[in-house]
Amino acid sequence: MNADRRGSFIVSVGDLLASWNLPHATGRVYGLLLVSEAPLSLDMIAAELALSKGSVSTAVRQLDSWGLARTIPQPGSRRLLVEAAGGIASLLEASHARAKTLIAALREGEDLVSTDPARRRLEDVIGLFASYVDVGSQMLSTYRRQQERGKES
Amino acid sequence: MNADRRGSFIVSVGDLLASWNLPHATGRVYGLLLVSEAPLSLDMIAAELALSKGSVSTAVRQLDSWGLARTIPQPGSRRLLVEAAGGIASLLEASHARAKTLIAALREGEDLVSTDPARRRLEDVIGLFASYVDVGSQMLSTYRRQQERGKES
Repeated sequence: MNADRRGSFIVSVGDLLASWNLPHATGRVYGLLLVSEAPLSLDMIAAELALSKGSVSTAVRQLDSWGLARTIPQPGSRRLLVEAAGGIASLLEASHARAKTLIAALREGEDLVSTDPARRRLEDVIGLFASYVDVGSQMLSTYRRQQERGKES
Repeated sequence: MNADRRGSFIVSVGDLLASWNLPHATGRVYGLLLVSEAPLSLDMIAAELALSKGSVSTAVRQLDSWGLARTIPQPGSRRLLVEAAGGIASLLEASHARAKTLIAALREGEDLVSTDPARRRLEDVIGLFASYVDVGSQMLSTYRRQQERGKES
């Protein structure tokens, strides 16, 4: 049934954003926005997700700060509408920035061990993690460039 | 001073493993093992990190289950020694397995919206996340193959 599939999708997005340490409610609001053809009011979001208006307000504020949602003021009304905006590139980029800081901190430790196998083992851990972050970074840069080209055309 | 740099490295590894939802103490034990030239006893780890022996025991058990540490029984003694083992490839692979499950769940939602811009927006989010996971997966496979070749030579 479509309502179940919708509910299940919304929970999946909650789970997805939780892996970037965003509250599950925030992720679910994003999930709802992604499957809504038109912008929604905070009341509508609260009703559909069985959340308090305060929780929805907090979630929308977080999504806005991440560039995942935008608020649309209504002329002559204090009511805001909300819609999903952009993709998760900003979240991934922030996650990468943090990973790079950690890699730099780990590299500081490379001269704390001087003999094999400890030395090689440490280089191996750092090397793998750094490569993993690099390929992700490259992919994000490519994505950003494609987005920019898309806007110019 | 070397002791400070060592302490700082250990905390960084705690932070790093926390991004895979491992307790900070577990990450710090791994960090200590990475900068130890020789295997350590649980008492030595507890003393250096100011942890209880129970916490160290739990941490070691977790690291062992992730392939990040191995225990070495001592003949004629009940004392175990512990050393770092392998890299973080298993953690990354587990993280990928979970990401792929989420992507499959997200794709289930693609037909919940049928009109642009909602449809295109959703495809964009899923597409980016899927590409991000794919490049990481490819990199891990390459790494695994290199490890296997290293063992054969």
